[in-house]
Amino acid sequence: MSPKSILITGANRGIGLGLLKQFLKVQDIQILIATCRDPSKAEELNSLKDSRLHILPLNIDCDESISKLYTEVEKIVGEDGLTVLLNNAGILLPYDVEGKKDRRTMLKNIETNAVSTAIITQEFLPLLKKAAEKNGGEGFSINRSAIINISSTAASVEKIDGTFNGPLVAYRMSKSALNSFAKSASIDLAKYHILITSFCPGWVKTDMGGENALFEISDATKTLAGNILTLGDAHHGAFLNSDLTVIPN
Amino acid sequence: MSPKSILITGANRGIGLGLLKQFLKVQDIQILIATCRDPSKAEELNSLKDSRLHILPLNIDCDESISKLYTEVEKIVGEDGLTVLLNNAGILLPYDVEGKKDRRTMLKNIETNAVSTAIITQEFLPLLKKAAEKNGGEGFSINRSAIINISSTAASVEKIDGTFNGPLVAYRMSKSALNSFAKSASIDLAKYHILITSFCPGWVKTDMGGENALFEISDATKTLAGNILTLGDAHHGAFLNSDLTVIPN
Repeated sequence: MSPKSILITGANRGIGLGLLKQFLKVQDIQILIATCRDPSKAEELNSLKDSRLHILPLNIDCDESISKLYTEVEKIVGEDGLTVLLNNAGILLPYDVEGKKDRRTMLKNIETNAVSTAIITQEFLPLLKKAAEKNGGEGFSINRSAIINISSTAASVEKIDGTFNGPLVAYRMSKSALNSFAKSASIDLAKYHILITSFCPGWVKTDMGGENALFEISDATKTLAGNILTLGDAHHGAFLNSDLTVIPN
Repeated sequence: MSPKSILITGANRGIGLGLLKQFLKVQDIQILIATCRDPSKAEELNSLKDSRLHILPLNIDCDESISKLYTEVEKIVGEDGLTVLLNNAGILLPYDVEGKKDRRTMLKNIETNAVSTAIITQEFLPLLKKAAEKNGGEGFSINRSAIINISSTAASVEKIDGTFNGPLVAYRMSKSALNSFAKSASIDLAKYHILITSFCPGWVKTDMGGENALFEISDATKTLAGNILTLGDAHHGAFLNSDLTVIPN
């Protein structure tokens, strides 16, 4: 068994596109919704021909865009609701504490990665609740209803040790805030049996990760997608590596 | 020995005012700078008569206000630099993940508590570096140069367990981001020997904490101020309770 429907944000490249390709290989996933800012420019995404795939525009920093997406998704998933919201869209704006003060850049990094992810999660709660109720079952399961956040080990305050130093302070803050949101929501929304799990996908050769990164996108997303499809009670509220090992916050 | 100078933001009430009163009792602290949005309305703060006390306006959400403060503080501390920047100013804007989506409120909570604290810290680095260099010594010490952040156990992703539930998600995100900034800066700025430590002051009967809180302001700030004055190498980059016990992130 697999989730009936999965929505992936930021699915035009990198981890988002990689996960989408992996999920497309799983035949009993019935609906895959891929969002990106401008689908007309998403060449590789558009080249994926599959009747289960719906490509929709989304600017997660814009409430109106989020609401429009909701309306479209509701039409697609209907009374089944949305099984999985996979919050992958994110940015990395370099910021050096010793450099120029730049309130706008710091705020923008946090808005996109943490606040916009919170807002889209709030927007989609009715469809996630609908899936959780309709699918039923005991406790938490990826097949019942789930919110999966793509975070980063950079979120871990415990693990900030200078190893991956560089102008990452705004990015770190954004991902720590994102994990705080996910953990908080995992408590507040537990009564609806919506599974919430945060992942670090590892250091992957994406536009963000750069060419020196350790993992190929296809390998990293194969492991991650495979393990996402096994999530259950033990993973609710957790912050995990792709191989399901726990990352300290 | 005590720090030569301490600047406390949000010192017109609550923990900030309480800490200021405690530090005023310590005779070898030579300069205390207390900031608040509108000193003309800060009745209790203005009633504290002490020649070491300087009261200055600051709106931490405004870069121009931060720059103006820097100019004034530079005149006061002169070639000694600023020994301690105590980032206490903060807000708690209720936010319920099940309630109305409100991007602006969530952003505002994070901006004031995390981003503005980062910006003021960046602004004051030259004066903190000056103190660290002038005071010299080995390693880290509150008497050499320090940034102390008033955070909250709510920042701890590990400790979000529903015990202090309520509409706290934006506040939690803001304080997690603040701790992420502090830990990150503690690595990036270690070379200057500026001590950086984050505290949870406990649940105190302030306007924010409410009347059901466990501790009186005077008791809570007596313990906290006393322990702040002992900080050294062991506390650099740490997130601590008032009694110096460690809080998991």
